[in-house]
Amino acid sequence: MNILDLLLGKPLAASDERAQQLGIAAGIPIFGLDALSSAAYGPEAALTLLIPLGAASVAYIIPISSSIVVLLAIVFFSYRQTIAAYPGGGGSYTVASENLGTFAGLLAAAALMIDYILTVAVGISAGVGALVSALPRLLPHTLFFCLIILALITFINLRGMRQAGIIFMFPTYLFIGSLLAALGVGVFKSVMAGGHPVPVVAPPAPGSAIAAVSVWLLMKSFSSGCTAMTGVEAVSNGVRAFREPVVDTARRVLTIIIGLLMVMLAGIAYLVRAYHIVATDPGKDGYQSVLSMIVAAVAGRGVFYYVTIGSVLLVLALSANTAFADFPRLCRAIALNGYLPDSFSLRGRRLVYSRGIYVLAILAGSLLILFRGVTDRLIPLYAVGAFLAFTLSQAGMVAHWKKNKGPGWGRSMFINGLGAFATGVTVIVVLVAKFVEGAWITALLIPALLFLMMRVKRYFVRVEAELFSQEALDTTKCKPPVVVFPVQTWGKLTQRALQFALTISSDVHGVHVCREEQKEQLKDEWKRLVEEPAQRAGLPVPKYVELESPYRLVITPIVDYVLKIAAEHPSCQIVLVVPELIEQHWYHYFLQSNRAELLKGLMLLRGNDNIVIANLPWYLKRTEI
Amino acid sequence: MNILDLLLGKPLAASDERAQQLGIAAGIPIFGLDALSSAAYGPEAALTLLIPLGAASVAYIIPISSSIVVLLAIVFFSYRQTIAAYPGGGGSYTVASENLGTFAGLLAAAALMIDYILTVAVGISAGVGALVSALPRLLPHTLFFCLIILALITFINLRGMRQAGIIFMFPTYLFIGSLLAALGVGVFKSVMAGGHPVPVVAPPAPGSAIAAVSVWLLMKSFSSGCTAMTGVEAVSNGVRAFREPVVDTARRVLTIIIGLLMVMLAGIAYLVRAYHIVATDPGKDGYQSVLSMIVAAVAGRGVFYYVTIGSVLLVLALSANTAFADFPRLCRAIALNGYLPDSFSLRGRRLVYSRGIYVLAILAGSLLILFRGVTDRLIPLYAVGAFLAFTLSQAGMVAHWKKNKGPGWGRSMFINGLGAFATGVTVIVVLVAKFVEGAWITALLIPALLFLMMRVKRYFVRVEAELFSQEALDTTKCKPPVVVFPVQTWGKLTQRALQFALTISSDVHGVHVCREEQKEQLKDEWKRLVEEPAQRAGLPVPKYVELESPYRLVITPIVDYVLKIAAEHPSCQIVLVVPELIEQHWYHYFLQSNRAELLKGLMLLRGNDNIVIANLPWYLKRTEI
Repeated sequence: MNILDLLLGKPLAASDERAQQLGIAAGIPIFGLDALSSAAYGPEAALTLLIPLGAASVAYIIPISSSIVVLLAIVFFSYRQTIAAYPGGGGSYTVASENLGTFAGLLAAAALMIDYILTVAVGISAGVGALVSALPRLLPHTLFFCLIILALITFINLRGMRQAGIIFMFPTYLFIGSLLAALGVGVFKSVMAGGHPVPVVAPPAPGSAIAAVSVWLLMKSFSSGCTAMTGVEAVSNGVRAFREPVVDTARRVLTIIIGLLMVMLAGIAYLVRAYHIVATDPGKDGYQSVLSMIVAAVAGRGVFYYVTIGSVLLVLALSANTAFADFPRLCRAIALNGYLPDSFSLRGRRLVYSRGIYVLAILAGSLLILFRGVTDRLIPLYAVGAFLAFTLSQAGMVAHWKKNKGPGWGRSMFINGLGAFATGVTVIVVLVAKFVEGAWITALLIPALLFLMMRVKRYFVRVEAELFSQEALDTTKCKPPVVVFPVQTWGKLTQRALQFALTISSDVHGVHVCREEQKEQLKDEWKRLVEEPAQRAGLPVPKYVELESPYRLVITPIVDYVLKIAAEHPSCQIVLVVPELIEQHWYHYFLQSNRAELLKGLMLLRGNDNIVIANLPWYLKRTEI
Repeated sequence: MNILDLLLGKPLAASDERAQQLGIAAGIPIFGLDALSSAAYGPEAALTLLIPLGAASVAYIIPISSSIVVLLAIVFFSYRQTIAAYPGGGGSYTVASENLGTFAGLLAAAALMIDYILTVAVGISAGVGALVSALPRLLPHTLFFCLIILALITFINLRGMRQAGIIFMFPTYLFIGSLLAALGVGVFKSVMAGGHPVPVVAPPAPGSAIAAVSVWLLMKSFSSGCTAMTGVEAVSNGVRAFREPVVDTARRVLTIIIGLLMVMLAGIAYLVRAYHIVATDPGKDGYQSVLSMIVAAVAGRGVFYYVTIGSVLLVLALSANTAFADFPRLCRAIALNGYLPDSFSLRGRRLVYSRGIYVLAILAGSLLILFRGVTDRLIPLYAVGAFLAFTLSQAGMVAHWKKNKGPGWGRSMFINGLGAFATGVTVIVVLVAKFVEGAWITALLIPALLFLMMRVKRYFVRVEAELFSQEALDTTKCKPPVVVFPVQTWGKLTQRALQFALTISSDVHGVHVCREEQKEQLKDEWKRLVEEPAQRAGLPVPKYVELESPYRLVITPIVDYVLKIAAEHPSCQIVLVVPELIEQHWYHYFLQSNRAELLKGLMLLRGNDNIVIANLPWYLKRTEI
């Protein structure tokens, strides 16, 4: 058992695939963490923008949250249909490119990719941010904790999907259970008290109003609240990861995730209003999150409070995992169409698309390092991507129904059309409301990524065109090659190179770059030890070539000679034989001149299609240092 | 003219060597900077240890400096003889190893190498230290300046010896001229005033005596003063670098350097006594160097003062250059005997031993970085190495005279014997006096380096023994090889690999690692496009081999197959043909899977002497991205 097996688990054969698939219980943490955890920051983000209204802000949370819940319901019914129509995985990319064309598909893909990268960075940094605001001593180590969590999530995902599901089950269900309990108790108390419950721990008094309500303010609040909906599309993209019957399992998981999210959003909005909770400014002293105020008002600051808030932190930090489940699948789908390198479509030892996992980890890690683990400023960037993908996906479904016209296609088309319309309007609202704060960056990045993918495709198309052929083997071109090899001294290495050269050609050139001392000796040895035996054996006689090197370069003259021979024999292959000592210990390479490596490198750099480089290794024995 | 030509100068042919050789005027800066600059810190180091004696310290500088000057004279006569006896370059290493055996030679070499590395670090850091003590604003940039100067010296040396001599001429002669002028004027004034001159600027009053004089204290003071003698051996090592007649030129350069150094040391000692100059503590406020006090006492703080002190700073910082002239020559001599890698003996484009220059720059740079540019603590380390090398070199000369017995060999042997004795005693004194302060580190490093060089030699001896052969070409072993090559799809790349394979062998295996989709198609294409045409042309039919890969690995199955074939054909060479796309732009490599590179690497790692790896490049055309 080697070290990789121990770290990453034994390699899985393709036939092990069934066992790696997800049931409902494991599917919820894998594909739902992102969506569910956004209950912790969506309402908060909406309320924060209402702070200037003072106590009056409480009145507006119900309409804003209701709009979001309605939007969520529309999106839910849209995606239910998508899952059924695309049981092979119906992410925005697939749906949009199949129905609206490549360009729309890549646009959705670019939007989603950027969204996922941001999700990872923002999720981890939000979790760590909450942790360090609870334990300010840890503040200087923010970036360190962020990267540790990133490494952990990456690592767990490299071990495979199923294990990720099992590991993340505990914090996810703890979060769902404790938050639902807090909300349930709160609503019960409130109803019992006729809508005016007495808080166990009173929330801070609201500041005085410094602004009147305006449509613009409500629009911005709604846009911020919409971040609660990111991550909803993950299930439809990952249908293939579920257990048979895939469509049913995926639909049930989607229903549970969105149902829970809706209940949470509604419960939070109701209690904010009932307990008159106003957001506090996250940049200032006395900041407390909305969820923290609600739980304290409902249950006081006991064990229950700490368990609930602790599970929120955990779930926030782990919400990055949804992106890790989905980003590699998205990249695979794109790679299969040639818009990303082929390696994104290969599954690693644990049946995951390792390349996508690495790329996501590297990009998100770079963001975290660039922003030193504080990525609040990135939040405005990321609802645009998600909603753009929603819109394109729903619009694609509309085209799908129009084209295929299955039973009840009219109703289906209407539902998806409503979804496309609602999310499309939301994209515009979010883009306008958040443009100055950062949405413009997304508006630049998405086309840039789109352009890059188109260029990648163009490259692959050209390479394929260059290499494509259905011509049969052309046997007329099989002329014997000319063999050139460097000779430093006579010895076993040269003996072997020469023997090999003679097996493949009758035109062999031993090339010696002169250093005065050895000149005559080698010439003499060549005559005695090579030419004469070859003549006696009736073999073609290998040529001995001396190259002058006034500037003491050893490698360039050999490369020049090979190029000269290649020019003289345009219809032949030239084989440059490079004997190379293979050391037993890596540190022995410091002792060698690495001339073989340099010769191979320079020859490749300056060579052409007719020049083959044959590496003749000599494995050194019993050479201890 | 390319960028390297512009930076480093045009390459020089070996026949340009004459023009690169040094006359007396250029030889003094090259080989004398180290020795001459030590006049600036040797007496200072001796006096610093006498601070506890207060005003009484002045009395002891004359005997201490006299001992050093006498020692210098002995060493001078010894090295004059060495130069004549070894016109090919008679460094301690050469002399000791030829006359006292390999072990003594390597011991001297190790001592000198460590000495040179320390010289570079300490010289540069002393110069920069003096600069920042004059301009305290620069203090935070100490390391930066050190590395800049190191880079500059390295760069100048890579451009060749002669240019280094020309560039360093100005500061060297400015230093010699201004310091000699200051000392001459001072001595003249003092003699005129009957030994009691009136200082223009009075030196600080001495502190009160806090210790009585002791033999131990004088021994330590003498040991510190001996650092004034480091760098003296450089000329004898570099005889080959001088113009014809080399022995005369080298001897004259040595005479001038040591003569100047003796005059400076004597003058400084005389003026210290005449002006009652007591060293100040370098760690405390009000610190002023001894040279600064002397020049101020003699000439006041005018333009002349600043020119002199400025030239001292410059010469200190550039004293590292002597090590750069000598270290690479020393490494070359060792490499020619096989105790260091061969590459140390190759001359670069400008006829200098570039490898030695790089290694010295890297090691000295590491020391500077490790000590953040403040290497005062390294000073105690470095007289040991120099004097050990002196001793071994003189002792070697004694053995030389005894063996060769030329005319006047008795007198010569006596002079070298006296030198060996005097420097040998000094080694012991320095080692004892400085042991606790750091000489123990040298006492550990020298044997460590010695051991390493012995191991390097052992390695080369073993490799040579393994590869040595005077057997004639064995033509019976020239059996045709078996060729294996990977096939992914049918296309021009495969066509070419197949054509090449058929030119060198009749036993050709096209190996396909299965990914389900292509399996049947490729099998069919092979039959139609390869087997049938080959049969029709009467050529041997290439085999098509399918490899299963349950773990989706692409490379390992191919390597395993090659190893299997190699085991089945123990008397044949196996050629693994690896087609590889060569991109036009480096960034295109991100798009490729790098499978060719990985395949070559893994095959080399797991292969054996019978497996040849033939790299078949395909240069992509017109593939812009």
